[in-house]
Amino acid sequence: MAERLNIGLFGFGTVGRGLYDVLEETRLKEARIRRICVRNLNKDRGVDADFTDNPDDIFGDPAINLIVELIDDADASYRIVRRALEANIPVVTGNKKMLAYHLRELVELQRATGTPLLYDASACGSIPVIRNLEEYYDNDLLISVKGILNGSSNFILSKIFNENMSYPDALRMAQELGFAESDPSLDIDGFDSLFKLIIITLHAFGRYVEPERIFVYGISSMNDDDIRFATEKKRRIKLVAHVEKLQDGRMIMCVIPQLISRDKYIYSVEDEFNGVVIKGKFYYKQFMFGRGAGGYPTGSAVLSDIMACFYHYKYEYKKLNSESVPEYTDDFVFRIYLRYSADEDLALFRFRTIREKYVSETSKYVVGDISLHDLYTIRDDIRGRNLFVAAYPEN
Amino acid sequence: MAERLNIGLFGFGTVGRGLYDVLEETRLKEARIRRICVRNLNKDRGVDADFTDNPDDIFGDPAINLIVELIDDADASYRIVRRALEANIPVVTGNKKMLAYHLRELVELQRATGTPLLYDASACGSIPVIRNLEEYYDNDLLISVKGILNGSSNFILSKIFNENMSYPDALRMAQELGFAESDPSLDIDGFDSLFKLIIITLHAFGRYVEPERIFVYGISSMNDDDIRFATEKKRRIKLVAHVEKLQDGRMIMCVIPQLISRDKYIYSVEDEFNGVVIKGKFYYKQFMFGRGAGGYPTGSAVLSDIMACFYHYKYEYKKLNSESVPEYTDDFVFRIYLRYSADEDLALFRFRTIREKYVSETSKYVVGDISLHDLYTIRDDIRGRNLFVAAYPEN
Repeated sequence: MAERLNIGLFGFGTVGRGLYDVLEETRLKEARIRRICVRNLNKDRGVDADFTDNPDDIFGDPAINLIVELIDDADASYRIVRRALEANIPVVTGNKKMLAYHLRELVELQRATGTPLLYDASACGSIPVIRNLEEYYDNDLLISVKGILNGSSNFILSKIFNENMSYPDALRMAQELGFAESDPSLDIDGFDSLFKLIIITLHAFGRYVEPERIFVYGISSMNDDDIRFATEKKRRIKLVAHVEKLQDGRMIMCVIPQLISRDKYIYSVEDEFNGVVIKGKFYYKQFMFGRGAGGYPTGSAVLSDIMACFYHYKYEYKKLNSESVPEYTDDFVFRIYLRYSADEDLALFRFRTIREKYVSETSKYVVGDISLHDLYTIRDDIRGRNLFVAAYPEN
Repeated sequence: MAERLNIGLFGFGTVGRGLYDVLEETRLKEARIRRICVRNLNKDRGVDADFTDNPDDIFGDPAINLIVELIDDADASYRIVRRALEANIPVVTGNKKMLAYHLRELVELQRATGTPLLYDASACGSIPVIRNLEEYYDNDLLISVKGILNGSSNFILSKIFNENMSYPDALRMAQELGFAESDPSLDIDGFDSLFKLIIITLHAFGRYVEPERIFVYGISSMNDDDIRFATEKKRRIKLVAHVEKLQDGRMIMCVIPQLISRDKYIYSVEDEFNGVVIKGKFYYKQFMFGRGAGGYPTGSAVLSDIMACFYHYKYEYKKLNSESVPEYTDDFVFRIYLRYSADEDLALFRFRTIREKYVSETSKYVVGDISLHDLYTIRDDIRGRNLFVAAYPEN
């Protein structure tokens, strides 16, 4: 074990700053930040640290024995992580988009180089979901992982549902509090949840699925009619990411708003919190809940990864070698609520069964069964239209 | 890594049988039960396995490379665990009472022999609380761990509070479902929670405190007046185990029924479930929730320990060597509710302040502030009397 980790840090946004503060306050002997690489060297950071805008000042410093990468740009993040692994420098990242697109090759690269890449902080901030899926839930017959993985959209939904706040006000508030990504569409349209779901699925079921293959749909077109419908049914709308192993051994994945009834654990996950329900055959349901966004909780999660590096922890990716890695499928029928305006929009949806149909002068909706595959097929057509889709399970 | 773990199992009660079934169903290549040592060889176990009543048949079998100890008797459990460690055979145990009394020397013995002892299954069944305290929450400034750690008493409280069941009926139901220990007073009087709290505290704060030093008080004297009081205040009574680091760096611990308000996470922990709230300076609160009792969930937790052994995992007990291990103190004042009958019983309590006093023809109670130390001093005097004490926090 190295006597001390000398960290080369990339990025000094909300999470980078959070990590800096957490390290200052905990005063660990085991790790300290040696140099910080930022894009704009002229910005006043308000801390006494050694900044640079040249990555070579990090990679060329022989004293640096850990790279921590907390930048927004997924392409730049990928270059840093790859370069670190190739130089045999352990690396911690929080960039879920980068991971979601490159996990397969990064797993290979870790194997080839023997150098660890840790990223528990990338999914659900302070909730140790990856580590637990990797280490603890590795032998029971895991059935599903389902959760609210995006603090920002959940914050907005909470403000809308509980405080009657308008959508733009709630979004602005989330951004001011540092919960929202710099590109809010990542949060609102479900892509941030999708990226985390892909990472989680790899550790839960040993299967990597490309982001493009998954149906993802967010909350940006939700309106007052949808909120009223949910409230009348004593439910709340939550943006849910979901992976589940079917009885036939195949596996479905999706990110979709869901009408959640009161007796579900995630019904009570409010504000910027995340909540994950892990279901197994023998332990039934486990619920993990905590802050999924914000500089301090995420910085604290990054620190957990740093300390794991200190103790030479690596993800083993045991499940990738399991005999029964499930195939991904979207051949799965489920019940949805669809609020729409124009009848030609309704015609896009190939419902198997229509269970309810409601038309008034101001509002129209149907409740019916549709296959995930059919939804996936029309994913680009339905985005941006005056309609809203949510999963509407029987209970 | 051993090619396969050949398990010598002690005990075939609810959890032992649960482990057997979980292993049968998951059909792991990595581990199988080779022999089972039970007290009564004549009892029909209904499974096709190699039973013995002689411990030497386990310890003398050179093929056995893991001992799993799931018996009720804490003294016998201690002898088995000690013998296993001294013979350099890794051992998994679920016996919290044994651990609570012997953890200090068992930590030493692990160090001396280099042989691992794992016991995540001993606290909170399927919730990986020890592993997470040990591995994940090891660097943030941990403030407190608080939770419902006993599924059986919580099951009883749920039945009483939600279904108006009588206390004896609820207890019988818990026993029939296999949630209650063979000695129900361990559950009801809080000792099972205490044992788990002692284990958790060692992994949370690096401090071992003897069970005798802790104030522990259960629910056996709770009556309808107490339930009515709680309900009127829109609270529920839960049996809560609690360890908290005070601002002065010292640490309090106790097990006591608590009047829990609706906005607390553990308010919604019902039936045989356990819930643990871990509070840290930077991630605020984490909530972990799952089945804490029953053969399958606990068997599944034992299997997690077994697989961790397979991968050569050991508890590092890092916090024991920390520079700031907190001292235990009971010098702490808090608000309690006391329902009593005889005035001489009230006189036992050295209240600092009485905030409310209520007397009717059938019921009397006070709400007031008292020190944990003063409660500890009268712990033997108040047990078995017609009175009931519960912590009653301001919010």
